[in-house]
Amino acid sequence: MTAFSRSSLEELLKKRFFYAPSFQVYGGVAGFYDYGPPGCALQSNIIDLWRKHFVLEEEMLEMDGAIITLADVLKTSGHVDKFSDWMVKDVKTGDIFRADHLVENVLETRLDGDKQAGLMTENDATSQKDKKKKKGTVQAIDNYTGKELGEIISKHNIKSPETGNDLTEPVEFNLMFESSIGPTGHLKGYLRPETAQGQFLNFKKFLEFNNDKMPFASASIGRSFRNEISPRSGLLRVREFTMAEIEHYVDPNNKKHARFDEVKDVKISLLPRHIQSEGKTVPIEMPIGEAVEKKIVDNETLGYFLARTHLFLTMLGIKYDRLRFRQHMPNEMAHYACDCWDAEIQSSYGWIECVGCADRSAYDLTVHTNRTKEKLIVRESLAKPLIYEKTVLEINKKIFGPKLRQSAKTVEDYLTNLNEEQLEALKKELEDGKTMVSCADGNQYEISSDFLTIQKQTITEHVREYIPNVIEPSFGIGRILYSLIEHVYWTREGDEQRAVLSFPPRVAPFKCLLVPLSNNLAFSKLVCDLSSKLRKLHISIKVDDSSNSIGRRYSRNDELGTPFAITIDFQSVQDGTITLRERDSTKQIREKTDTILQVLKDLVEEDVTWEEVLSKYPIFVQQELD
Amino acid sequence: MTAFSRSSLEELLKKRFFYAPSFQVYGGVAGFYDYGPPGCALQSNIIDLWRKHFVLEEEMLEMDGAIITLADVLKTSGHVDKFSDWMVKDVKTGDIFRADHLVENVLETRLDGDKQAGLMTENDATSQKDKKKKKGTVQAIDNYTGKELGEIISKHNIKSPETGNDLTEPVEFNLMFESSIGPTGHLKGYLRPETAQGQFLNFKKFLEFNNDKMPFASASIGRSFRNEISPRSGLLRVREFTMAEIEHYVDPNNKKHARFDEVKDVKISLLPRHIQSEGKTVPIEMPIGEAVEKKIVDNETLGYFLARTHLFLTMLGIKYDRLRFRQHMPNEMAHYACDCWDAEIQSSYGWIECVGCADRSAYDLTVHTNRTKEKLIVRESLAKPLIYEKTVLEINKKIFGPKLRQSAKTVEDYLTNLNEEQLEALKKELEDGKTMVSCADGNQYEISSDFLTIQKQTITEHVREYIPNVIEPSFGIGRILYSLIEHVYWTREGDEQRAVLSFPPRVAPFKCLLVPLSNNLAFSKLVCDLSSKLRKLHISIKVDDSSNSIGRRYSRNDELGTPFAITIDFQSVQDGTITLRERDSTKQIREKTDTILQVLKDLVEEDVTWEEVLSKYPIFVQQELD
Repeated sequence: MTAFSRSSLEELLKKRFFYAPSFQVYGGVAGFYDYGPPGCALQSNIIDLWRKHFVLEEEMLEMDGAIITLADVLKTSGHVDKFSDWMVKDVKTGDIFRADHLVENVLETRLDGDKQAGLMTENDATSQKDKKKKKGTVQAIDNYTGKELGEIISKHNIKSPETGNDLTEPVEFNLMFESSIGPTGHLKGYLRPETAQGQFLNFKKFLEFNNDKMPFASASIGRSFRNEISPRSGLLRVREFTMAEIEHYVDPNNKKHARFDEVKDVKISLLPRHIQSEGKTVPIEMPIGEAVEKKIVDNETLGYFLARTHLFLTMLGIKYDRLRFRQHMPNEMAHYACDCWDAEIQSSYGWIECVGCADRSAYDLTVHTNRTKEKLIVRESLAKPLIYEKTVLEINKKIFGPKLRQSAKTVEDYLTNLNEEQLEALKKELEDGKTMVSCADGNQYEISSDFLTIQKQTITEHVREYIPNVIEPSFGIGRILYSLIEHVYWTREGDEQRAVLSFPPRVAPFKCLLVPLSNNLAFSKLVCDLSSKLRKLHISIKVDDSSNSIGRRYSRNDELGTPFAITIDFQSVQDGTITLRERDSTKQIREKTDTILQVLKDLVEEDVTWEEVLSKYPIFVQQELD
Repeated sequence: MTAFSRSSLEELLKKRFFYAPSFQVYGGVAGFYDYGPPGCALQSNIIDLWRKHFVLEEEMLEMDGAIITLADVLKTSGHVDKFSDWMVKDVKTGDIFRADHLVENVLETRLDGDKQAGLMTENDATSQKDKKKKKGTVQAIDNYTGKELGEIISKHNIKSPETGNDLTEPVEFNLMFESSIGPTGHLKGYLRPETAQGQFLNFKKFLEFNNDKMPFASASIGRSFRNEISPRSGLLRVREFTMAEIEHYVDPNNKKHARFDEVKDVKISLLPRHIQSEGKTVPIEMPIGEAVEKKIVDNETLGYFLARTHLFLTMLGIKYDRLRFRQHMPNEMAHYACDCWDAEIQSSYGWIECVGCADRSAYDLTVHTNRTKEKLIVRESLAKPLIYEKTVLEINKKIFGPKLRQSAKTVEDYLTNLNEEQLEALKKELEDGKTMVSCADGNQYEISSDFLTIQKQTITEHVREYIPNVIEPSFGIGRILYSLIEHVYWTREGDEQRAVLSFPPRVAPFKCLLVPLSNNLAFSKLVCDLSSKLRKLHISIKVDDSSNSIGRRYSRNDELGTPFAITIDFQSVQDGTITLRERDSTKQIREKTDTILQVLKDLVEEDVTWEEVLSKYPIFVQQELD
């Protein structure tokens, strides 16, 4: 098999309009892409399968929310303060660079350069040490603060790449696109950086829709935005992208999953923290059941989604040995996450995060509850009431008010905010009759024991209130789409010009090519009839009645990844038979139209394989057409 | 039948979370809505049917483009200058109103008020005249300029509604959301107001993908944005909405459509200009073939899409008698359109535009070609070459350059930009040997007849170049969705509390409810098995195993518009039969599981009707459950 060539693939993707830079006739803008017909259909099919595999399979509550998001929401979620990258400027030209990427590129180039120049020999201890240092910096590049990046830049004497000028200290750049809502100009909004927040805000409505039953999941598919400092790597790092996100809400005390048994034997590749911290990158393979049992993966629900994600990706055509699940190191997690596993897919750009499976804990629901006072919580009726002792405070209003007068409210606020421990301490202080308390207004107030009572009470709770934890599998559709294309791309033995994209039938942009042998009028009616029949079967087709040779037309559709082709020739007109060609093997069968249509439907729905078809129907051999 | 109550419907839509204001826990922002599970599924189904009905049916080239659009693109398209509404401010409070809506509301309220106060009697000529004037103003409200609106406000003494304060003169407010791209802050972008521009920019790539064959269509489904001054009318006027747009490219000399014959007998309701200008609103009904023949609808392609749109909307469940196609009056068309028909759907908000079918002529492709110099044109090989005479200019470089020196370029630019008529005039002037020309730099230059030759030449063209015209059917999915809900909403005879949404099966958010009679464990396994079988058939289900009565659970799903329900009871456990209930009739049949599943699949795909099922299987009668 020929070695992979990214430039050849890119040439193909451009030629067949899988995708292209947006506004290209205006020169384009980095990080924006338009999906042409095959890319758009491929994306639709991936989304459709995602919806079937996740949403319909588990009756998830799908929603479709606003993209423009009120600034307040994202302030609360932490995105306004923390969703940013570090940038540095060329002090003379003003050119802007993303600090971590710049450091990474420069150090990697230097490592390569040193290697090529033969500077590093086994015996050269100093350069070995230096090499190790550079490598360490590159590996940890995601984890540095702005200050640290500044120090690295100065230590390694990194300059503006084109001009050699000095660089400024790193400054923070928020990655959200900002806009303003309505005619006043005063109401700020951002384009959402994820669909998750929109889901969290609707938690109460979801829970009600679900008849108050826990656990359950919401889901959303849609566009999100990230104003990257310097987009790169094609579809892998863009400013506008389609995400599919699941928020699975669980009881923090019970992260079991009812359907875990169905997936427990699914084997997946894991790269847990302890392996990474040994500096190793070879994953371990094991059934997810074992991984959860051994606590490598924290709980069943997280494990369930890792396995389901694995099944989804491999069903699309992602190669098993180019897929791994890597656990985040503690210092690389997003501000909201308490554990996180990335599904990483290997492509010519390296191992790239395509799905993040994060345990966001109760973070988001808690911050929104605190901010809005709208309780995003679960109330669970307890079969057996919960009985326990609690230290409680009771204020003697008759004395308290008149004695403290205008300050009563301030002191009351102070007291009601004390926790049990603090109440016990206060009780002790009051044994002497009087004590001073320091309140929020900065003043001290004297209170005496007759102002209040502090005592143990027996509490009986019939309802348990809790903020659920959230397990979030979040899919970057564009990244999956590009990685998939690399995985299914190959060229025919002995002819590098003849490229093929071997998408599985359900994923392929178009299912069937329809080619009349020539422009002969006798064929037109047949093409028309067949098209109509195929549409009724919901099989998406491409008719190619151009004057190119049949071989040329087959090749063109191999490049589009169209798995099947029906050819209409003179025999078709005579006896109503047509041929069905399969893309990868290029083998054909010839049968009556109705038989072919049934076979095709089964193939497209992946109810039978081409091998099974060939074992049932004779191969049709005809002169090589080209 | 009970009279329609919008507030009851709204209550239902809120209770069942069809949609709700976005960021509601933060107080919400006008014009933004989140679709909950049933709304989201309904929207998906409408989009899915749209894609099958339009894109797959005609092999349209679907794309998915960037939402953020380079400002330059929208400057060229005219949106930066012309996509705006007029607003007025309360001079004291600064409150902002959309001028036309304010005028409309105030005048309508006054008309109503006058009527109620009995001020207008048949005999009162003055008030009759005044009434007519007000009505005329309201009817023409879409067509006024800012200046005219200002005059109307002052003439009718319209004040700020809440405060009674004066209003400012109308000022223009651009309806696009603005943002900036990248870290410099200098690159301006807008959120697209339509998907169309993204399609136009890719015209060359589409044409190539289509093997240079004309005519063809591109299509796109996605979010667009409009920063409304004061959003209102629920889903009908929002700031963020999903559109589905088709751009059908045709030869301006041939707007025939190859498949027009398939739709020519489709009868639709038309409200052409001539009827409207007579002040009438009763549409005429006729087959689209006749409408095109009589030139009521300009051409076959436009007619084809009106008919196809009619078929699509009625298939969704839009009522025939509440759908009409209204032609735009010349002064109400968008800046790019040369003819336009709106599919208007009647709801409690009146007749609302839900689909616009515009002939955008060559406008967009022309302006982008002129601006970018990237030719968005078609090159057609002519079977018979085109031969004609043309006046052409040839410059005698040997004399021209040396004589005019530094000014040669300026004069050459002037000359090469002359059209045939101007060239003939120049030729005449040069008969005297010399003449003066006024160039772009403001100077006059003397040129003599030996500088150049102007003569008739015979031109033979083998290729015809033209900019295609664009017929654009543009669908507002949210408006269609809301109107549809109104059309299928009703309450059961004698019980207004029992509401039903009679979505056709293919459109319904969920296809089948699965209800075990009780929480009995014997039912759980059956529910599990059946769920899994239904999912394999791609039938979306909702399991309701809550402790509510069966009747209550049926009602809840009638409100969700779920067309079918399967009930599992003790007999199911014994003999493997289950009952199938249909939503509208509430009738049931009882058969073996496999039979029911097959019947259900056929019903969901609308291959059979419930009436047909009832004619084949006996009705199952059981005690009324409630």
